[in-house]
Amino acid sequence: MALDFSVIQQDKSCRARLGLLHTTHGTVETPIFMPVGTQAAVKTMTPEEVKEVGGRLILSNTYHLYLRPGHELIREAGGLHRFMNWDGPILTDSGGFQVFSLGPLRKISEEGVTFRSHIDGSEHFFSPEKAVEVQESLGSDIAMVFDECAPYPCNHEYALEALQRTTRWAGRCKDAHRREDQALFGIVQGSTFADLRQKSALELVELDFPGYAIGGLSVGEPKEAMYEMLDLTVGFLPAEKPRYLMGVGSPDCLVEGVVRGIDMFDCVLPTRIARNGTVLTHHGKLVVRNAEYARDFKPLDPTCDCYACRNYSRAYIRHLIKAGEVLGIRLTTIHNLHFIQKLMQEIRDAIRQGEILEYRDKFFENYQQA
Amino acid sequence: MALDFSVIQQDKSCRARLGLLHTTHGTVETPIFMPVGTQAAVKTMTPEEVKEVGGRLILSNTYHLYLRPGHELIREAGGLHRFMNWDGPILTDSGGFQVFSLGPLRKISEEGVTFRSHIDGSEHFFSPEKAVEVQESLGSDIAMVFDECAPYPCNHEYALEALQRTTRWAGRCKDAHRREDQALFGIVQGSTFADLRQKSALELVELDFPGYAIGGLSVGEPKEAMYEMLDLTVGFLPAEKPRYLMGVGSPDCLVEGVVRGIDMFDCVLPTRIARNGTVLTHHGKLVVRNAEYARDFKPLDPTCDCYACRNYSRAYIRHLIKAGEVLGIRLTTIHNLHFIQKLMQEIRDAIRQGEILEYRDKFFENYQQA
Repeated sequence: MALDFSVIQQDKSCRARLGLLHTTHGTVETPIFMPVGTQAAVKTMTPEEVKEVGGRLILSNTYHLYLRPGHELIREAGGLHRFMNWDGPILTDSGGFQVFSLGPLRKISEEGVTFRSHIDGSEHFFSPEKAVEVQESLGSDIAMVFDECAPYPCNHEYALEALQRTTRWAGRCKDAHRREDQALFGIVQGSTFADLRQKSALELVELDFPGYAIGGLSVGEPKEAMYEMLDLTVGFLPAEKPRYLMGVGSPDCLVEGVVRGIDMFDCVLPTRIARNGTVLTHHGKLVVRNAEYARDFKPLDPTCDCYACRNYSRAYIRHLIKAGEVLGIRLTTIHNLHFIQKLMQEIRDAIRQGEILEYRDKFFENYQQA
Repeated sequence: MALDFSVIQQDKSCRARLGLLHTTHGTVETPIFMPVGTQAAVKTMTPEEVKEVGGRLILSNTYHLYLRPGHELIREAGGLHRFMNWDGPILTDSGGFQVFSLGPLRKISEEGVTFRSHIDGSEHFFSPEKAVEVQESLGSDIAMVFDECAPYPCNHEYALEALQRTTRWAGRCKDAHRREDQALFGIVQGSTFADLRQKSALELVELDFPGYAIGGLSVGEPKEAMYEMLDLTVGFLPAEKPRYLMGVGSPDCLVEGVVRGIDMFDCVLPTRIARNGTVLTHHGKLVVRNAEYARDFKPLDPTCDCYACRNYSRAYIRHLIKAGEVLGIRLTTIHNLHFIQKLMQEIRDAIRQGEILEYRDKFFENYQQA
């Protein structure tokens, strides 16, 4: 069995729950945030550093690895875990989101998607079967079905068409999937239409996947619309299977997602804003790159115990970033991932103590949304 | 006493010697290679990583830190050690080399040099007194006099003028220098003219510095000319004082420099070529960025025990560098500095065993010069 999930505690007042996700490369506690290692590396970090900040399950991108260095090369290397020296679990996306984001560079048919590489313009074809083949070569613990993520906003007709294709493609992925040490998750689509989210969820549950992702959210819609879709969609997903909200990772959305029954999250936000000189704190974002921190010799966050906050000042980190020194973005990345992982730890502790809603209230008392 | 140097073993067949250099921030063994942390960071590395690869004494650049973030800011931070979280010894150059490298952007007078910042074009003035003031603000363990490094090639008349100014400026630096926890080294100039090197060395020794650098070499002259100047210059320097060959760090030049009596070296070469995807081995350079390593799953150097070689393949590191992932240049930097520090350790062991000339022969049997 490639994947086993057990809910070890269900909150009484909301859908938040504590779980254990058993994968081929080990067991992790949920709710969990997965750092993103797009090109077989969490940007700027070694695997040891990812673990030190609390990362346990990472995400890597099929589209990027297929194009460079190529999935065959990674298979020859002994798979993605060995290639990148990460011995914990890995989830790979299907490439669907990236391929559909290419806009004029791609053409969709029932068979699959023809697209041009963003690197060299070369033409490629991805089908559900191809997405499975590539992910089997990579050898991730959790693979995702090849889905069509509708843009926001889109009309009901387009969203319906995209979700129906996603369901048909989910079936083809399941038929093509062979690796017994790898789990394959379905992806619920349906944009912000309640009837379509319901339809998508019910059709996918029919196909019986070991886990379900909710895709097509956090793509530009208001947060309230996302929360509404979560409330609705989670109600149609089986309680005993893990639920993964794709591409969501701002602190406020993590708290709100957990309360709505989400077990897994991924997002480039913490690592991406780190490289722009922005760090996360319990009070919101702090742009350490700004001139006001030039002579500020306090740590990024005086309450934080990460490597960056234990050893360096805002003034030093600002200097490094202004001077283009790689160490600067290493330190902000370490801080941001540590912050997110510690937030998830606090969230799990609050669920364990039956106090997740109180935790949410306290969190939003402090947190200034950008 | 800011600095104490003791020769603990003198080779019988050549000028190589083993020494202990005692500074305000600890004692280091010589011959030593100093990694370069131009902008208050050894590029891509944390202080812990610098130590892990064997770095004990680092160099930082006065010109760069004066311009950004500014020496006053670093003084407010508690000095350079605290600012960058490095508790070992630091040597700062004087800014002379950088200022004189600016070409049309600078104007020389007896008083000092007017130059424009390479960052924003703003005008600045450096004098011997200013170079001392800045280095005292930084609080390095070893400061350097403000010198004029003549370009190569240059004629005898120009080289004479530059070295005479360097001597006069060395005297002014000495007069201006106040910090008792910081040592100030003189710098021998004279281009590739034997009579000028002799003159410069004798005049500086007259001023009685606690250590002497040899500047103006490795600036384009043939290596044989450099070795000839070393043979000659070292003969005029006091045996009981440390000798520092500035800006030299290719493996072959380190071996040849030690044999000629040099105790200290610095160079950006190992870290700079690392960022271009080139690594050092006992057989010479290996350009891991090249296509031939795309499917090479061996370590950078199968005989090496550095973090990069213990955990990653050439194929993976090449992929990271091609994909612009920072981890790639972190790994090549770690490898190259580890290689150089291990080379220095081998050199010190060979001197200790009275076998440095045999070590040199063996080294050049393997080493392919670029």
